[in-house]
Amino acid sequence: MHIHIQEFADSPYLKLTAAEFHEAAALAGGIGEGHTLTVGESEAEFAAAAPGIEALIATPAAIRRLDLSIAPKLRLIQSTSAGVDPLAPFDMIPDGVMLLNNRGVHADRAGEFAIMAMLMLATHMPAFATDQRAHRWQRRSSGTVAGMRATIVGVGGLGGGAARRARQFGIHVTGVRNGAAPHPDCDATRPVGDLDLILPHTDFLLLTCPLTAATRNLLDARRLALLPPHAGVINMGRGALVDQPALCAALRAGSIAGAVLDVFTTEPVPPDDPVWDTPNLVMTPHISSDDPARYNAATLASFFAALRALAAGRVPATLVDFARGY
Amino acid sequence: MHIHIQEFADSPYLKLTAAEFHEAAALAGGIGEGHTLTVGESEAEFAAAAPGIEALIATPAAIRRLDLSIAPKLRLIQSTSAGVDPLAPFDMIPDGVMLLNNRGVHADRAGEFAIMAMLMLATHMPAFATDQRAHRWQRRSSGTVAGMRATIVGVGGLGGGAARRARQFGIHVTGVRNGAAPHPDCDATRPVGDLDLILPHTDFLLLTCPLTAATRNLLDARRLALLPPHAGVINMGRGALVDQPALCAALRAGSIAGAVLDVFTTEPVPPDDPVWDTPNLVMTPHISSDDPARYNAATLASFFAALRALAAGRVPATLVDFARGY
Repeated sequence: MHIHIQEFADSPYLKLTAAEFHEAAALAGGIGEGHTLTVGESEAEFAAAAPGIEALIATPAAIRRLDLSIAPKLRLIQSTSAGVDPLAPFDMIPDGVMLLNNRGVHADRAGEFAIMAMLMLATHMPAFATDQRAHRWQRRSSGTVAGMRATIVGVGGLGGGAARRARQFGIHVTGVRNGAAPHPDCDATRPVGDLDLILPHTDFLLLTCPLTAATRNLLDARRLALLPPHAGVINMGRGALVDQPALCAALRAGSIAGAVLDVFTTEPVPPDDPVWDTPNLVMTPHISSDDPARYNAATLASFFAALRALAAGRVPATLVDFARGY
Repeated sequence: MHIHIQEFADSPYLKLTAAEFHEAAALAGGIGEGHTLTVGESEAEFAAAAPGIEALIATPAAIRRLDLSIAPKLRLIQSTSAGVDPLAPFDMIPDGVMLLNNRGVHADRAGEFAIMAMLMLATHMPAFATDQRAHRWQRRSSGTVAGMRATIVGVGGLGGGAARRARQFGIHVTGVRNGAAPHPDCDATRPVGDLDLILPHTDFLLLTCPLTAATRNLLDARRLALLPPHAGVINMGRGALVDQPALCAALRAGSIAGAVLDVFTTEPVPPDDPVWDTPNLVMTPHISSDDPARYNAATLASFFAALRALAAGRVPATLVDFARGY
C-alpha cells in the first residue's frame, strides 16, 4: 500500500515522522510489511505523491488543507487526533474513503489530567489561583474526594480513562452517553437526554465528548444554572461544547465554584480575551491528552490495527461515522 | 479523668467542640467513659478549670499561650496537629507531662493533595499559571507520570499517604528518613545523609517531615542546585524546611521547573511578599492536610487510642519525643 504522511511545517502539534512509521510497521508484524511511504510538508509534495496515495496519515487541520480529489486511489485516511470536528460535515472526504481517528490513544494521559483537575476543583485550586493573583491569603478547607460525584459526558477513550482514575479515589461516576449501555468504569450510565436531571447532583462535570452538531453548546447558560454552586467544570473535549461567555459569567457570579479548561472556542486564546482573567478559572493550552513519548507510536499502532481489521473483513473500531461525527 | 479542650476564639483552625468529644467518647468504648469535660476559649476559662485538669486538648499555638504551671494535675497534652514545632524546644511543657500529636490523621487527605501536586508539576501547571497571568498561550506537552521519580522526605503520616497514591500512578518512590528502614509504600528508603545523592535523580521532591533543629532549612540554595532543571518541589511540611528566598530565586532563574507550596516561612503570607508573584509557583494557604469532615473525629480517636495504650501500660504511638522534636 502507498501510505503518505502529511505534516505541514507550521503545525504546532507533535510531528509524526517516517522513522516512527517504520518502527511501528516493524512492530505490526505482517500487516506492517511491503508498504511504500512518502512524507509531505507542503501542498506541492502532496500533489507529487497524490496519484499513488492509497492511505493518508495527517491531522484534521492538514487534511482540510489538501485537495483530496487529486488522489484517485485514496481509500483510507488516518486522523492523528481523535476529534475530527474540523472535517465535519465531511463533505470534503471523497465518496468511499474511510476516515479513521485514533480514539483510545489518549486514555491514560487523559485519565491523569482528569483526576488532577477533579482534585484541583475539590481543593479549591481555581479560587486559590485567583487569590494568588490578588495576593490574598484565604483558607478554604476541603477533605478527601471519596463519595463526591463526577458526571462524565462522553465515556469513550478520554472519558473512560477519567472514569477509571476517578473510581480509584472513591468518586461516584455517572457516565452520560448516547443510549445508556453500562460502562465498566462507571457506577451508572445515563442517556444524554437525562443530563438536566443529573446536573443538580454533580460535583465535577467533565466534558469528554466529541464536538458534533448535537453537542455544540451542550453546556449553555440554562444547563450551567442547573449545577450546584459548589460544582466545578472540566472541559477536555472541545471549546465549543461550552457557551464560554456564559461559563465565565457563572464563575464571576459564583453560581459555580470553579473550572479547569483545556479547550476554548478560539485557540490560541487571544491575549485580550476576557477568559484569561475570569476568577476561579484555571486554563491550560489544549494539552490534556498529550503524551509525546507514546502518542505517535500509539496512533500508528491504531492505524495498523485498522489495516488488520480491514484485511480480515472487519470494520475498524476507529472508523468515523460521518452521520454521528465521531 | 478531667479533660479540658482549649480553643481560643480567634483560632483560624477547625474548632474542636464538646459535642464532637462526646461523640468520639461514645465510640471509644470503656476508655471513653467517666470523664469530666471542660472547654475554654480564654485564659480566664483555662485558669478556672486549671486546678483539676489532667488532660489538655488544644492546638500548639493555644498551648503556647497557656500557663501550664497552674494545672498541677496535668499529665497529658493532646496536640490537635501533627506538627508541634511551635512548642519546641518544649521547655514550657512541665516535667512529667506527655505530649501527644495526631500523626496519621492526615494521611488520606495529604495523599490526595500530594498526588494532585505531582500531577500538576508533571503537567507544568505552575508554568501555565504564570502564563495565564501574562495572557500567554504557550503549549508545553507532558505524558503520563509512570516511571517518574518522587523523593519524599519524611514518610510518616503525610509522606506515607503520598507514597501510597504516587505508587498507584506508577511513580517510583524513594522515602528519605532517619535510618533507612523499609516502608511498605516506598520502592526504596534512604537515610537523610544520602539526600544529596538522591536529589539529582528526583523529578518531584516532596517535603513531609517535621520541622526540627535538624530539618530547618533542609532545602537550602546548595541542595536546590542539586535538583535537575525539570524538577518540581512540593512543601506540605513547614515553611522553614525551605530557604524560601533561595527557592524563589531558583524558580525565577529556571534552575528548577516549578513548585507547589502549602506552607511558608511567614503565615499568613504578607500581601507584599515576593512569593506571591514568583513565576512557576502555585500557592495554597496551609490546607494540604485539612479534612474537616473527618479531622476532629480522627484526632479524638487518636487521643482515646493513646489513653487505651496508657491504660495497658504501653507507650502511645503518638507520643512526641522531645529530643527528636516529633
